[in-house]
Amino acid sequence: MNPIVLFSIGLLMAAMGILFSIPAIIDISNHNPDWKAFAESSAIAVFIGISLMLLTWGRTFCLGRRDGYLLTIGSWVAMSLVAALPFWFSSHEISFTNAVFESISGLTTTGSTTFTHLGSMPPGFLLWRAMLQWIGGIGIIVMAVSLLPFLRVGGMQLYRMETSDQYDKITPRIADVCLRIFGIYVLLSLACVITYWSLGMTIFEALIHAMTTISTGGFSTSDQSLGYFKAPAIEWAAVVFMLAGSLPFTVYIRFLHSPNRTAFTLDSQTLPFMTYTIVTICLGAIYLEMHQPSAILDSLRISAFSVVSIITTTGYASGDYLGWGAGAATFFFFLTLIGGCAGSTSGGLKAFRLLALYKGIRNQSQLLQFPNSLYQMKLGDRDLTKESMTSVYLFFLVMISSLGLITLALSMTGLDFISSISAAATSIANVGPGLGTIIGPTGTFAPLSNAAKWILDVGMLIGRLEYFTVLVLFLPNFWKE
Amino acid sequence: MNPIVLFSIGLLMAAMGILFSIPAIIDISNHNPDWKAFAESSAIAVFIGISLMLLTWGRTFCLGRRDGYLLTIGSWVAMSLVAALPFWFSSHEISFTNAVFESISGLTTTGSTTFTHLGSMPPGFLLWRAMLQWIGGIGIIVMAVSLLPFLRVGGMQLYRMETSDQYDKITPRIADVCLRIFGIYVLLSLACVITYWSLGMTIFEALIHAMTTISTGGFSTSDQSLGYFKAPAIEWAAVVFMLAGSLPFTVYIRFLHSPNRTAFTLDSQTLPFMTYTIVTICLGAIYLEMHQPSAILDSLRISAFSVVSIITTTGYASGDYLGWGAGAATFFFFLTLIGGCAGSTSGGLKAFRLLALYKGIRNQSQLLQFPNSLYQMKLGDRDLTKESMTSVYLFFLVMISSLGLITLALSMTGLDFISSISAAATSIANVGPGLGTIIGPTGTFAPLSNAAKWILDVGMLIGRLEYFTVLVLFLPNFWKE
Repeated sequence: MNPIVLFSIGLLMAAMGILFSIPAIIDISNHNPDWKAFAESSAIAVFIGISLMLLTWGRTFCLGRRDGYLLTIGSWVAMSLVAALPFWFSSHEISFTNAVFESISGLTTTGSTTFTHLGSMPPGFLLWRAMLQWIGGIGIIVMAVSLLPFLRVGGMQLYRMETSDQYDKITPRIADVCLRIFGIYVLLSLACVITYWSLGMTIFEALIHAMTTISTGGFSTSDQSLGYFKAPAIEWAAVVFMLAGSLPFTVYIRFLHSPNRTAFTLDSQTLPFMTYTIVTICLGAIYLEMHQPSAILDSLRISAFSVVSIITTTGYASGDYLGWGAGAATFFFFLTLIGGCAGSTSGGLKAFRLLALYKGIRNQSQLLQFPNSLYQMKLGDRDLTKESMTSVYLFFLVMISSLGLITLALSMTGLDFISSISAAATSIANVGPGLGTIIGPTGTFAPLSNAAKWILDVGMLIGRLEYFTVLVLFLPNFWKE
Repeated sequence: MNPIVLFSIGLLMAAMGILFSIPAIIDISNHNPDWKAFAESSAIAVFIGISLMLLTWGRTFCLGRRDGYLLTIGSWVAMSLVAALPFWFSSHEISFTNAVFESISGLTTTGSTTFTHLGSMPPGFLLWRAMLQWIGGIGIIVMAVSLLPFLRVGGMQLYRMETSDQYDKITPRIADVCLRIFGIYVLLSLACVITYWSLGMTIFEALIHAMTTISTGGFSTSDQSLGYFKAPAIEWAAVVFMLAGSLPFTVYIRFLHSPNRTAFTLDSQTLPFMTYTIVTICLGAIYLEMHQPSAILDSLRISAFSVVSIITTTGYASGDYLGWGAGAATFFFFLTLIGGCAGSTSGGLKAFRLLALYKGIRNQSQLLQFPNSLYQMKLGDRDLTKESMTSVYLFFLVMISSLGLITLALSMTGLDFISSISAAATSIANVGPGLGTIIGPTGTFAPLSNAAKWILDVGMLIGRLEYFTVLVLFLPNFWKE
């Protein structure tokens, strides 16, 4: 293995070890004994991390394609395991399985939880869960901007052109782009903290929820999620900031640098994404009015909050949307798989793929009638080449196959059909809640068997890493040379 | 509209009108008053059919691409409506909705039914249902051999090479191939009749079940389906003949003409299809042994019968396989979508597409690691060109999208999630039974709302016509010129 892979993982582990000090300090200042769990975890993480760095210090640092894959998967798995340590070491008798599940659910910004009685959990714990999602969120954007287009995963090569062509005008290097994105991420989070705080949350609650809103993660400080606050204004604010987190972060940069402020309207994903989100919200509100008539503004708010929570893959709940009526479960099941824009913190299929798939179907139908015509497919100002279309088709195929295999594996552990298929969907799309009484928006993943939780761990990771990044590992050729 | 489209539909309608005489004669000889329903239907069908033929007689008979689509869809819809007439006209108070549902379910060889108390139904009725499936079955094979490769639907162009290259050695023209296929179809049906009869069915029961076995349709003479006979030998015979109906019929021709009898082993679909079917049967038997231990041969038979019934898209039941255990529903749900071989009477995704998709994923994973390599994908001795792979990817995409849209539409009529998604799957794959208590293997589609039945009618037809044949109608360009 290339030393840079181990060096980078070591660096990340050491960094996470240092980050453990933040929840530790919070717990110390609250006289909570769980600071020890963070201190122990920190010692382990820093020790292993620095050891890895020292062992590989000064070696050749040329990153090949295979190293790219190993680094990506290796760092996500290593971070997930290290981040689980404080949960496991704590005084709350959290099993290793649950600790890892919570940690993966956090870092992948899924937001499924096995923890109950969140209200009585020590603040350090709640903070660490939110930090995991916040760190995971920026990690995903950086991966989507720097690594996935280079590895050509699932049609992301479409966004390579962007970084090499248009970006040259704005910022010379990817590292610089990532730094600017981080700045925007921090600013959006701060704006969200202030908004939540001014709307009645305590500063701690505002901080936690801001971190899990911008990262479209969905962890909360209460078992009732955002429904705990019973504040329509907070729900509207969450809608705005969840959407902010699911727009492509590179477009924010372009917006700030373009003189005429057209970056969002010109972007290939933003406008279509906002359009189908708003249409879906309206459909949801109409459905709600038909089944549970109430003030139109209430229906609109409940629909907007629930739809945006699922479509941005955040997973907050403000009530049981499954109680809307018979069609609600199906409606939210399909919403689960869609997702926000590529280059954001959201998961799922993503807007640009949805558009590309639609254009592919239309193009094929035209070709069936006029086989000799040539149609140039475009997405915004980008050409949808045959190669990138194939990548997108295969992404869809592998996503659905993963959904099928994980559903099958879950049901073999004894889980019923609706829980299995919705748990599979919510894990690979990194959303959070599933359908049914067990894992629905009012339930948790705690009652699931250990086997089911490990299967979902795999689902959350492969979904976050866009499948092919993991699939290549299973090729016999991958390990040769 | 091209006169040949109307002429052909007229011809088919007149032919069906004449076929009505067979169940009418059966009913007369049984002193059953429902012969009148058949006689009335016959008069209407022959009258409209001959009128259409006379109106278009002697016009230009050049079949264009658009006419191909119109003829395909037009004849399936027209046949479905005409075939529903005797049910509607009968003394059994069958609603128009139920009559059309039964007729479409028959012609598409789906086998979902809204009829209960089949045992007390007049023999002419039972015969007509079986005849519908038998006619539908041969219609599908002829369509797959002659029309779909020409229209390049869903990768079927792969099988055009066959008809133009290899077939030239065997038979000079497609019409001749179709005639030979019809001969094989009749022979297999006769063999099935004799087998069922010798195993204890009455000659009438044997005839009905043979027609619905070879066509992988699944209509029966009893509400308990084949489970009524409680005869293991009959179930094993059904396994053999269902499989026979789901192999590519062109391979039978090649087998009869090749000197060394290697047609089946050399075929691109047959061997892989048989392999994964047998593996699935074994997995099913192991699962059954784990959950309901009994004699291994019994488990093997129950598994073989249920798996083959679903995978060949027949849909017979011999008991409630959903009672096997928690994972059974999920297992059979995914089996529902797979299907047999292209060029057979079965529906679903089909073996060659499953193989092509697997090869596509493997190829893409290799390309991600070695982007500059070139891999030639093959299916048997056929080249999987980029164009045909795109067709296959899009077939999968449109199949899953149809599944999603029909599920959503069904759930909006008030149907629960599991019934909606499994009804959608069973309709587009033309299988028959769904999951859950309503439409599971022991239930019927009778309790569903009229709206749900019409939605499923659409599902059965678009699945049977391989989606794109119908999709082209919705292009604005289609109706121009």
